Amino acid sequence: MTRIAILGYGNLGRGVEAAVAKNADQQLVAIFTRRDPKSITPATEGVPVLSVDEIDNYVNQVDVLMLCGGSATDLPEQTKAYARRFNVVDSFDTHKHIPQHFAEADEASKAGGKISVISCGWDPGLFSLARTYFNAVLPDGTDYTFWGRGVSQGHSDAIRRIAGVVDARQYTVPVPEALEAVRSGECPTLSTRQKHTRECYVVAEEGADLARIEREIKTMPNYFDEYDTTVEFITLDELRKNHSGIPHGGFVIRNGKTGRNDLRHTVEFRLQLESNPEFTGSVLAACARAAHRMNLEGQCGCKTILDIPPAYLSAESADYLRAHLL
Amino acid sequence: MTRIAILGYGNLGRGVEAAVAKNADQQLVAIFTRRDPKSITPATEGVPVLSVDEIDNYVNQVDVLMLCGGSATDLPEQTKAYARRFNVVDSFDTHKHIPQHFAEADEASKAGGKISVISCGWDPGLFSLARTYFNAVLPDGTDYTFWGRGVSQGHSDAIRRIAGVVDARQYTVPVPEALEAVRSGECPTLSTRQKHTRECYVVAEEGADLARIEREIKTMPNYFDEYDTTVEFITLDELRKNHSGIPHGGFVIRNGKTGRNDLRHTVEFRLQLESNPEFTGSVLAACARAAHRMNLEGQCGCKTILDIPPAYLSAESADYLRAHLL
Repeated sequence: MTRIAILGYGNLGRGVEAAVAKNADQQLVAIFTRRDPKSITPATEGVPVLSVDEIDNYVNQVDVLMLCGGSATDLPEQTKAYARRFNVVDSFDTHKHIPQHFAEADEASKAGGKISVISCGWDPGLFSLARTYFNAVLPDGTDYTFWGRGVSQGHSDAIRRIAGVVDARQYTVPVPEALEAVRSGECPTLSTRQKHTRECYVVAEEGADLARIEREIKTMPNYFDEYDTTVEFITLDELRKNHSGIPHGGFVIRNGKTGRNDLRHTVEFRLQLESNPEFTGSVLAACARAAHRMNLEGQCGCKTILDIPPAYLSAESADYLRAHLL
Repeated sequence: MTRIAILGYGNLGRGVEAAVAKNADQQLVAIFTRRDPKSITPATEGVPVLSVDEIDNYVNQVDVLMLCGGSATDLPEQTKAYARRFNVVDSFDTHKHIPQHFAEADEASKAGGKISVISCGWDPGLFSLARTYFNAVLPDGTDYTFWGRGVSQGHSDAIRRIAGVVDARQYTVPVPEALEAVRSGECPTLSTRQKHTRECYVVAEEGADLARIEREIKTMPNYFDEYDTTVEFITLDELRKNHSGIPHGGFVIRNGKTGRNDLRHTVEFRLQLESNPEFTGSVLAACARAAHRMNLEGQCGCKTILDIPPAYLSAESADYLRAHLL
């Protein structure tokens, strides 16, 4: 049994909580928050909600601490701070800062004799696995990653910052023709515009200049200017009714060649997720199992999912896996 | 640099040879055969072709021995015999005998202080990885595996044993409607007949009773009687021109639910392979890299791909993987 605690009870924290409930070998023992604990009602009956200030009292009652904060400001501080006292798992997803985050977590985990598993989830996470396996078995090839159809929180937030916008939801959508070209084994060179489109559903203030809002969205540097973007204005009721979910997904595809006749191979990994945070939480829960196992074996330091033997993520024994899943 | 030797120069042995040529960190040092070495001309210039009787003289010149024989009679003898003296990699694919094969290889490898990696390829192999990861991250779900479109050697051989048949090629084909139902997130219960169809291309002797041959194929127990099978008679020229390749592929899909609202997730791994043996050989080459690394670290015993950290299959350093593929 792995005793799990959650730090941070937002969408991801709730996703981890839901995932732990599906795992018979895991038990949620506490939720820690920076908010007033009384303001939180957990989905799991009987689990205590505690102030983060009390976390050090739980060092011996928690096997893995799940760090469910954001990558921008929370995790760069939290992971290295808690990795010294707990086995920790995080979903740090700022790709360019992963090497630094790894180094800091590794130092803290080694100092404390603990395991940290960073950058879990699906990208980074399962998509990273796909890229690594695909490159290892097809060294002569080309990688493609498509995201969507799914909600981009960052792009939705960017629209919300425009004057006159009440709320917004942005979907990233792979271009079907590009996807089919890649899947057919071709290795096209695709521009940003050729790979994804962006669909925006926007609730505007009454009397707002809709033409201006649409123009500001479509020309926004980095976020939208390099894409074909559609903007649809809807009511707040429509947004709540039709766009309240947080779906996401995507594709990792590698086309490779083997042999003297350049025979072609296409390997593809695809996700269709009705809830990005619940699926991400499920990956974190599997990584928590691995973190606990590795630490029980005496290992310490920082790991990523690329360092973890797949069997360690499974609740089943190695014998069972060989007999039934191999 | 990993020094590779191949035992058995059939389709898979040639596939491994082609894969090693794509890996800058691997070098093919010898091909061993039970046939007359003079009867073999390897694709790799300068590589010696030797009788298997000489193999023990090469113990110190080979880092990994690739066992490229068949699962029916070759590998059950060869793996345990050579695992004592060499790091070995095999593609043993008789699923129900894997636990016994593992135990025998494990004992031999441990006795010799070597690593054996068994049951590499794509099923078992990459498909096993998909099943294991998918089950670990979506414990509440349903697995589906589809094979094809691709050539089944066993079914082609079965047709060839029918009186009046000169040659034949059998393709296993997933039923598109079943595949789409699964991909859409439904969890249908599918019969054998609902999942795959079988397409047969048959060259008959002149004057043979075609109706009888077709009937014997379609009613053949285990091989065809539970499937919708189509039989097309073609000339030997047509067979050679249109059906000389060994393509294959397939799909591993898991539909799972998370959370209190049973939100649905579909995870999919797909292969489209122009050459089954060249792709299988490529997976074996990546596993050879891992076998060599694990043994250099002092590990011994039998492993499957489920026991190997993904990073060990890659020619890139852990730092590189974290910076570029994670």
